[in-house]
Amino acid sequence: MKLATLRDGTRDGRLAVVSRDLSRAAFADGIARTLQAALDDWRVHAPALAALADRLESGSAAGAFDFEPTAAMAPLPRAHHWVDGSAYVNHVELVRKARGATMPESFWTDPLVYQGGSDDLLGPTQDAPFPSEDHGIDLEGEVAVVTDDVAIGCDPAAARAHIRLLMLVNDWSLRNLIPGELEKGFGFYQSKPATSFSPVAVTPDELGTAWDGAKLHLPLIAKINDRLLGHPNAGVDMTFDFGQLIAHVTKTRRLGAGAIVGSGTISNYDRSLGSCCLAEVRMLEKLARGTPATPFLKFGDRVRIEMLDAAGRSIFGAIDQRVVKAP
Amino acid sequence: MKLATLRDGTRDGRLAVVSRDLSRAAFADGIARTLQAALDDWRVHAPALAALADRLESGSAAGAFDFEPTAAMAPLPRAHHWVDGSAYVNHVELVRKARGATMPESFWTDPLVYQGGSDDLLGPTQDAPFPSEDHGIDLEGEVAVVTDDVAIGCDPAAARAHIRLLMLVNDWSLRNLIPGELEKGFGFYQSKPATSFSPVAVTPDELGTAWDGAKLHLPLIAKINDRLLGHPNAGVDMTFDFGQLIAHVTKTRRLGAGAIVGSGTISNYDRSLGSCCLAEVRMLEKLARGTPATPFLKFGDRVRIEMLDAAGRSIFGAIDQRVVKAP
Repeated sequence: MKLATLRDGTRDGRLAVVSRDLSRAAFADGIARTLQAALDDWRVHAPALAALADRLESGSAAGAFDFEPTAAMAPLPRAHHWVDGSAYVNHVELVRKARGATMPESFWTDPLVYQGGSDDLLGPTQDAPFPSEDHGIDLEGEVAVVTDDVAIGCDPAAARAHIRLLMLVNDWSLRNLIPGELEKGFGFYQSKPATSFSPVAVTPDELGTAWDGAKLHLPLIAKINDRLLGHPNAGVDMTFDFGQLIAHVTKTRRLGAGAIVGSGTISNYDRSLGSCCLAEVRMLEKLARGTPATPFLKFGDRVRIEMLDAAGRSIFGAIDQRVVKAP
Repeated sequence: MKLATLRDGTRDGRLAVVSRDLSRAAFADGIARTLQAALDDWRVHAPALAALADRLESGSAAGAFDFEPTAAMAPLPRAHHWVDGSAYVNHVELVRKARGATMPESFWTDPLVYQGGSDDLLGPTQDAPFPSEDHGIDLEGEVAVVTDDVAIGCDPAAARAHIRLLMLVNDWSLRNLIPGELEKGFGFYQSKPATSFSPVAVTPDELGTAWDGAKLHLPLIAKINDRLLGHPNAGVDMTFDFGQLIAHVTKTRRLGAGAIVGSGTISNYDRSLGSCCLAEVRMLEKLARGTPATPFLKFGDRVRIEMLDAAGRSIFGAIDQRVVKAP
């Protein structure tokens, strides 16, 4: 099934089930008011939500209405845990290469993750506010999973069963603030503003054979101002799959239901597929010509991130946002 | 007023007002079910909660009962944002000195903060679970504030008005995992497990002249197995006050109501006052004698963190927890 959170004036929005083709929706009233509430007791609520999804597909859901992505908040407008991996290690290798540094061998076996803020998760068509263009505004196209409760010390195989939902992510990054933040050693804080999510979150069964239990084998399409930036395959060159990422983040702590675990910027060795972030484009330019040519984003630019199934239908709906100056 | 969240089988618990002397409590039923709900609409709910607190003090609150800290969860058992500063820069200077490194001058003017996980915040008397003693289990005694909504670009003076509550914190740290995590450059993730909080959160007016609007001028008392580890003053040698920390963390993002901002381990230049973490004790030993002598915590150890007012009364109740092996 596909789930969306619709704007209703509250901070957590109102949970709705959305049809497979993203055309129709029905509120999950009487089942769970919010997606967090559904995840808090998933075993109880998921069957009722699935039954509603079936009625919606067959046209028998009472009170169904047209689904408008512009009415969608992030599936979890605020969460309790947002941890983002950097699972496409070829991307990290490239970053290092561009600045003439070698990458520690351990990066191929020990995942990189950072903790993000989860109090302000942006909806798919909401304007994305930034204080200054000088910060080097960049997109990062990613896939993320939402887990149920995961105990300390979960192993990668067992972790797969804790994946309840998948979403697309734009992990906005402020490239010019990253070097200073990382130099301080405490993480990305100021360089990672509010993150954006797709209109719907989907259960793994919606993905068919494209989902192997830990990787999503489909291209992510990233566009800037309607121009294709890249369409690398999320299932290719993913050094750490979601099972491994969840195992990594539960080494010393448990995850509460509704935790969001991201893949990091999708990146393939096959550079003909393009990129999901401008930093990668600029690094390739630097390696090829000595200096980067493509600028970071400007106020007014639009960023679109989407994933299509084998038949060309949008799975998650599109993140389609305008970069704006923060008020 | 003083607020606690009592265990009721739900993930977010049940909000109660607690008397000034921590002896009595009354549920905030009919006002707000949870502390997050109260913070989501603080201007509406705070007056009603204050009125209930007044009735509780005068003995006229219906349904009042004895307050048991063992029934308390963390005031926010899960939050949407937990960011911890390292505001006592003398502590950072000492860490560096102990490993023979100098500290960048910028650390005196540009705060260090890290993003913590906020899906699993431990209650004051709950056992604190860790997978292994080999990780170097340590306490970090701190003060934290809870904010309401704060816009991007809030300045330090304006930030003070966004501080709604204060709490004590034990920011558990796994010292032997920190060097490896920081070397990777993405932050502390695995080295910062679930954090613990005091039985009650208090509004700034409860602190009288000890609260100057941005710093809390009282000693934090840290004990291990009933033996005093230290009682440094939280208002002394705090390089960045809470107004400055909030301004720092809102440089590129807003904070949602209920965001928790921590001070970092309290540490005074006056070493006769002791320490609030074992790492500092060990560094002082290393500087004095060449090698650290005090071990990190073992399973079964108890850690107590408390703050008393000028008359010797506990303000927040005590964090008093046992270190245990994670199941």
